[in-house]
Amino acid sequence: MERALVHGSFPNEQPEAGMASNERLEFLGDSVINVVVSQALYERYPNADEGELTARRAAIVSTTGLSRVARRIDLGSSLLLGQGAERSGARRRPSVLAAALEAVAGAVHLSLGLDATRTFVGQLLAPELARDVPADALKSPKNRLQEAVHTRSLPHPRYRTLSVEGPHHRRHFVVEVAVDGLGSWRGEGNNRRRAETAAAEAALAAMRSLGAGDR
Amino acid sequence: MERALVHGSFPNEQPEAGMASNERLEFLGDSVINVVVSQALYERYPNADEGELTARRAAIVSTTGLSRVARRIDLGSSLLLGQGAERSGARRRPSVLAAALEAVAGAVHLSLGLDATRTFVGQLLAPELARDVPADALKSPKNRLQEAVHTRSLPHPRYRTLSVEGPHHRRHFVVEVAVDGLGSWRGEGNNRRRAETAAAEAALAAMRSLGAGDR
Repeated sequence: MERALVHGSFPNEQPEAGMASNERLEFLGDSVINVVVSQALYERYPNADEGELTARRAAIVSTTGLSRVARRIDLGSSLLLGQGAERSGARRRPSVLAAALEAVAGAVHLSLGLDATRTFVGQLLAPELARDVPADALKSPKNRLQEAVHTRSLPHPRYRTLSVEGPHHRRHFVVEVAVDGLGSWRGEGNNRRRAETAAAEAALAAMRSLGAGDR
Repeated sequence: MERALVHGSFPNEQPEAGMASNERLEFLGDSVINVVVSQALYERYPNADEGELTARRAAIVSTTGLSRVARRIDLGSSLLLGQGAERSGARRRPSVLAAALEAVAGAVHLSLGLDATRTFVGQLLAPELARDVPADALKSPKNRLQEAVHTRSLPHPRYRTLSVEGPHHRRHFVVEVAVDGLGSWRGEGNNRRRAETAAAEAALAAMRSLGAGDR
């Protein structure tokens, strides 16, 4: 469980401390959360087809969705970070928080087995699993942004990659989406699609607070 | 378990039979297989980083990988198909076989719980989990094809989408990859990336049997 709280920046900066990062646990925990959420949705929506179930799962296990859960349990305050990452605000970054939550799920799974982990993860995500998101809101954030700007007769959103960093198996993308006449927003993720999705989510959130969004 | 063997084409053609397809079970079983494979790899490769674990998992749970397992247990002969799908050869199609295997895993999971399912899926995939694929072979099929043609001074592989069918939440892509002077191969999948990956795998398999592949 300690290891689940060690962000990769810490052992990178202080290898002499001999601590491993939470990245392997994140790999495991991602699949653990996925199966628990899949089963909960399978049971909760007996008439939903595979496409709807997939969209509902994606909304819950997205970086945005999992980071919200991590914030609810104040997971950020327990993270061990390198100083550089700390200064750049990694402790509040959605991708860092979501990854740590996955790592915690992975650690619980290794200690207690799959059936016990289902109870743990199910309780942790209970508010998300209980939210009956309307089918319309299940569309991808990029699609919803597209529709929202279309409805307002605004120009098409344009996506632009600002940076790609890290080795090829651990890329970090930062993408910007711009809507002329409205503004631009950034998103990040470990692939381009996730980064674009996060940028579109940021744009939609801003449009909602401007009273121009899709809800 | 019966439902896990019902391909979507059967209830589509004979709705009066009142049978549901295996698509919801496939959704669930996909995540079940994923978590079992993730844990097995986590334990088997204690020094592999997240990137290597992800690549190893992708190789096992790919359409190609799972359809191989389905063929080993002759799952195709037990499938219930519509007549049209039967005539078009769906019973031997990798995507159909892989989906049915996922549905079986989902059904076992619903009947027996996660811990018992781990034993079942672990035994089913034991040969795949025991194969120590060299790190080089873990690169994506598209990357390996790129390298293989480069090594032979052949032109770049070109990918072309032949067809996209189905509603937006259940697309079916057929893609062709062509290497001038060598041939062209098809792949299919429920998104473009998977279809391209399958096409690249087909090309690599052909190159291997021509003695021009990457192994």
